[in-house]
Amino acid sequence: MSNLKINQRALKYVADLLAEPDKYNVNVFTTKEGPTIVDAGVEAKGSYLAGKVVTEICLGGYGTVEFCSRPYGDLTLPSIQVYTDHPVVATLGSQYAGWRIRVGDYRAIGSGPARALALKPKELYAKIGYRDHSDRTVVVLETSELPNGQIGEYIADACGVRSDGLYIIVAPTMSLVGSIQVSGRIVETGLHKLVEIGYDPRNILSGLGVAPIAPVHPKFTKAMGRTNDMILYGGVVYLTVEDDDEETLKKFVDDAPSSSSKDYGRPFAEIFKAAGHDFYKIDPALFAPAVVMMNNLTTGHLFRAGRINVNLIAKSISS
Amino acid sequence: MSNLKINQRALKYVADLLAEPDKYNVNVFTTKEGPTIVDAGVEAKGSYLAGKVVTEICLGGYGTVEFCSRPYGDLTLPSIQVYTDHPVVATLGSQYAGWRIRVGDYRAIGSGPARALALKPKELYAKIGYRDHSDRTVVVLETSELPNGQIGEYIADACGVRSDGLYIIVAPTMSLVGSIQVSGRIVETGLHKLVEIGYDPRNILSGLGVAPIAPVHPKFTKAMGRTNDMILYGGVVYLTVEDDDEETLKKFVDDAPSSSSKDYGRPFAEIFKAAGHDFYKIDPALFAPAVVMMNNLTTGHLFRAGRINVNLIAKSISS
Amino acid sequence: MSNLKINQRALKYVADLLAEPDKYNVNVFTTKEGPTIVDAGVEAKGSYLAGKVVTEICLGGYGTVEFCSRPYGDLTLPSIQVYTDHPVVATLGSQYAGWRIRVGDYRAIGSGPARALALKPKELYAKIGYRDHSDRTVVVLETSELPNGQIGEYIADACGVRSDGLYIIVAPTMSLVGSIQVSGRIVETGLHKLVEIGYDPRNILSGLGVAPIAPVHPKFTKAMGRTNDMILYGGVVYLTVEDDDEETLKKFVDDAPSSSSKDYGRPFAEIFKAAGHDFYKIDPALFAPAVVMMNNLTTGHLFRAGRINVNLIAKSISS
Repeated sequence: MSNLKINQRALKYVADLLAEPDKYNVNVFTTKEGPTIVDAGVEAKGSYLAGKVVTEICLGGYGTVEFCSRPYGDLTLPSIQVYTDHPVVATLGSQYAGWRIRVGDYRAIGSGPARALALKPKELYAKIGYRDHSDRTVVVLETSELPNGQIGEYIADACGVRSDGLYIIVAPTMSLVGSIQVSGRIVETGLHKLVEIGYDPRNILSGLGVAPIAPVHPKFTKAMGRTNDMILYGGVVYLTVEDDDEETLKKFVDDAPSSSSKDYGRPFAEIFKAAGHDFYKIDPALFAPAVVMMNNLTTGHLFRAGRINVNLIAKSISS
Repeated sequence: MSNLKINQRALKYVADLLAEPDKYNVNVFTTKEGPTIVDAGVEAKGSYLAGKVVTEICLGGYGTVEFCSRPYGDLTLPSIQVYTDHPVVATLGSQYAGWRIRVGDYRAIGSGPARALALKPKELYAKIGYRDHSDRTVVVLETSELPNGQIGEYIADACGVRSDGLYIIVAPTMSLVGSIQVSGRIVETGLHKLVEIGYDPRNILSGLGVAPIAPVHPKFTKAMGRTNDMILYGGVVYLTVEDDDEETLKKFVDDAPSSSSKDYGRPFAEIFKAAGHDFYKIDPALFAPAVVMMNNLTTGHLFRAGRINVNLIAKSISS
Repeated sequence: MSNLKINQRALKYVADLLAEPDKYNVNVFTTKEGPTIVDAGVEAKGSYLAGKVVTEICLGGYGTVEFCSRPYGDLTLPSIQVYTDHPVVATLGSQYAGWRIRVGDYRAIGSGPARALALKPKELYAKIGYRDHSDRTVVVLETSELPNGQIGEYIADACGVRSDGLYIIVAPTMSLVGSIQVSGRIVETGLHKLVEIGYDPRNILSGLGVAPIAPVHPKFTKAMGRTNDMILYGGVVYLTVEDDDEETLKKFVDDAPSSSSKDYGRPFAEIFKAAGHDFYKIDPALFAPAVVMMNNLTTGHLFRAGRINVNLIAKSISS
């Protein structure tokens, strides 16, 4: 695990974005403080290709991202498929949106390889036993406000890199890249839920997932609702694991899908409203794929729980 | 929009074909008048890979083309998926088969980046506000007769390039590459129909489409019938747009699919026959995808019209 | 056909594996006798990406391999799609597991480009009229025991290359790469069955197939059963051919799917057991895709036989 270089690998994808901003429909600018900022959805329009590359950057370069078109009931929706052979490092160690950035009035949720330098959150890195070292780094911010150079300096400082070695990619939830990169968390969401319910993620050897991409909505609550619904009601993840404790594994799989939550069954925007717009009142068990499959290589068994809920997908994107 | 270089980008794909004709099953030859001709289906057998590359050339290098295998009722058919983040330039400005070439007895329909130099047709380029500049260019001809060097000179002249800067790719409708590249027009067909019914294409920001690939037929009328049917009865396109006029947008979506045509409901070869083999007697509203979806980023709504007609797909390819 | 260089092309993919063993989760070591051995599933864990690359190596570099996620009844399973524009050379001339290697007590089944140097089996190469020449080569061994350098010398010798020009890739049936590369034989299985029943493979111009990937099982008989079942009950292949004898072609298609076998209808592990664990007592007609489609370019007809058997897929992977 320690040989994986998520920052080094992700920076190659960043170079692609910087080389052809017109192709990707992104805006690139350098701040006087040093950090380079890539706007992939605030003023820029973004694109499918930018969504793919940003998701691959989030995965630290250790995941493959492809688009496909899939039926969900009588709807056919653009969907995203992700697979990774280093699921722990690529998702928990990089893609997971685990860095809450607050500088003055500025708020953003950070994900990507920079987290492995700043160790955000530290306990998770201790649990997975991964660290990276790099003098350049990239962070992906889910926010609708572009950061200024000073915010960049703060992030660079937390990562222990020079300001001019930092690349910040910004995509609001209410943008095409935002929709894509949230659905691109289908494998990550599976691993994170398993960790939440106590499973040792180091048993997990590979992950392949697919989820519909939410139609973009300009309002934050709706956009957040839809993008979450795509995972909760439409996402499927397939993991290979090595586990000696088959009985316990079976229980983990049963508890892994979103349907194990008491909040399951309504569009996320409704659940959020019912919780008084307070994330912390939502059952954390809800944040999970619709379907979780685990193939235990130790025994050969395939465990499966959950189902795709086409009615809720349709309801989510029609409201 | 003006920064997109469709000729420059497409020529990189042409270079791939020229470098490995054996891999692509194409024949490459240079005429004494200058133009280089790539036979991708007249005497050469062509291939899936050539079909992919030719479609990407048609899209001016601003589209991604992939094959997938999809169920249509109880049939599973090889299908093509196309997505583009520059749909207006890539499809209307390049892929659209808008250049009727007539030199002496020679007849062919031209598409691809050369159109943006020759401005064929001029009104469409005025409408989309796109021009390209290049001293080398590529045209794709749908015809079963290889052009000679003089026809090449005519085309080069119309594009304002030297004859030895012109690359002509030829694929008959009755070839594997022909079948692939017609189905690869799924996004283009959606945009073209929308323009036909009066929609402003500049609202359209991205497009993703999928359509079955017609089994190849050696007779022109059958081949033309089947390849059209794959779009009309099996094609699905998903567009993102920015549109302030939601009411009108909804009507455009309703009118966009092939099913809005009075000629809808029979295999295209039958319709063509009933029209006395005269294209101009066929309702232009027919030329459209089976399903059109539009996600309005301004409001968040997803509009959808049409449906996949598995019976007509089966009928088309069994006759 | 004679211009295809399967060894040269496959060795580029080998170089990818050698350059980044950590990314692919493979172990690479050089023996004192010369051959380089890539462990892709014995002690190494392997990966999806290694499975893709190993399958592309098996196809002599003349096939494209992609993963997708597909529904089989109410199961969604990771699946593999393969297409090739040189099906005879890529599958019969390279991928087919036609080399039974026996050195002392060591047993392995060999496939890949090395076969075209060692001409294993000779009659098949005579039939397809293909030979390759190369001073370096690669063989893929399906076995759970890593070969030593002496076995490597034996293989190199049979191929007429120096020992240090030989690359041996090893993946047991009971590994992720093993599961992937067996399902990746979906086009090859179609061609091989057609040859077995007397069809002239040189009529076949292209092939595209898709099959589910079996959940990995640690026991050989179960793993072999499941991986075969994915092809026999879940695999779909679509071929383009040129054939003047339409009547006979129709009969070949009817006989091509696994369902033409008297042994069809039970999980392969059961059939194997009933045959006293003796492969030679199993009806050879069984080894074929579930669905075979052939598009005759000479007449335009599409012939189809067989069906996906979702019940048997579910039964196979739950036992």
